[in-house]
This record gives sequence, structure tokens and C-alpha cells, in this order.
Amino acid sequence: MADPDCLFCKIVEGEVPAEIVRQGERTVAFRDINPQAPTHVLVIPRDHHPDAASAAAHDSGLLDALVRDAHEVAVAEGVDETGYRLVFNTGAGAGQTVFHLHAHVLGGRGLNWPPG
Amino acid sequence: MADPDCLFCKIVEGEVPAEIVRQGERTVAFRDINPQAPTHVLVIPRDHHPDAASAAAHDSGLLDALVRDAHEVAVAEGVDETGYRLVFNTGAGAGQTVFHLHAHVLGGRGLNWPPG
Repeated sequence: MADPDCLFCKIVEGEVPAEIVRQGERTVAFRDINPQAPTHVLVIPRDHHPDAASAAAHDSGLLDALVRDAHEVAVAEGVDETGYRLVFNTGAGAGQTVFHLHAHVLGGRGLNWPPG
Repeated sequence: MADPDCLFCKIVEGEVPAEIVRQGERTVAFRDINPQAPTHVLVIPRDHHPDAASAAAHDSGLLDALVRDAHEVAVAEGVDETGYRLVFNTGAGAGQTVFHLHAHVLGGRGLNWPPG
């Protein structure tokens, strides 16, 4: 279910390089190319879904898997104890730039409020 | 599965008032008491889970339901087209203040980066 024009599908397929930190059964996690915190990792599903809502509508259990795997990343990065933030942007107006669902995992520094 | 000491369990039970915008089968959505955007709604599961990772570990499908219901809130608020952000804080260091899983749904204004 890869989209041939999707950058993140190409990362899943290994056609575009990324600093991958975790290969899960249903997800791949890699460092954001423009990190906003000491830990800033993107967790994406292997299958192509444009955003969180469409994934949740079409693939039961995928968001659970994504959140579980994001937590595994947080543990591996040592930010599960200090706290971390998961962010899903839906739509360009919210800052979504790649239309393949991705959870931002941010930690390793104090996180401010509001969240953008 | 309510925690008698949990503020959000009391909102689910109707024991503490809140500006509820949606009653879902598995979730309740209400306005944040300290809104950070024109739309700032919290979507919480009816069952008590302290955070996203523990919910995803123990209750399969709950994160999918939460994300679907958050999207329904975004549609009802008219921010699905302009874009919205979902934020899950895990741990006090990330800004979590109530230890009952909640998704922040933010929209209705430009959302900045980084997300806090």
C-alpha cells in the first residue's frame, strides 16, 4: 500500500535514506531532519495513510500500534521518565508537510505550552 | 474502571461539570478550561488510563477510537478543513497535569512550530 510519490513511503522502502532508530512490525521510526528537541523522532506506519483520522478510519489497531511503538522509542531515547509529547498534525494549516501519517515524539527538554 | 480520585473520571460520570461537546461510545469530549486556541477540546476515554502508552498497551482499538472521535470534534468545530493538531502529553515534564489520557485538539488559528 505504498504511494509511489510519497517521501515517507520511500523511507519505509529504503529508497530514501533516514536515520532510522526503530523498525517495528507495522511502523518505522526515524529522526526528524529538522529536530526541535534533543529527542525528535517521527513514527510512521509502513502502510500509507495521509493522516491520523484516515488511518484510524481504515486500519483498526494501527494508532494503538503507533502509540506503543512511540513509547518504545521514548524508552530507548531515555525520555519516558522525564516526559515526552506526541504530536499529530492534520492539514497544512496545522503544519503538516508530508501527507503520510507521522507522530512526532519530542522529549529531552522542557516542553512549553501552548503546543505551537 | 473509574478511578475515584481522578478529575476526568468525575467528568465522565457527570460528578464534575464540564462544557461537553461530544459524548461518544468510548469517549467524552469537552472544552479545555484554559483554551490555547479558538478550538481547544480534550477527548478522553470513558475508562481510566493514565496516559496514551498505557491505554495502547491495555485496550486494543482505544487510540483508534480516540483519534476518530477527535476528528469528529474537528469536523463539528469546523477546523477539519483548515487543519488541527492532536497533542498527547506523557509525564509531568511534558506538561501532563491530569493523569487520565486526554488528546488535546487544537485548531482555529495558525499553529506554530515547534509544538511547545
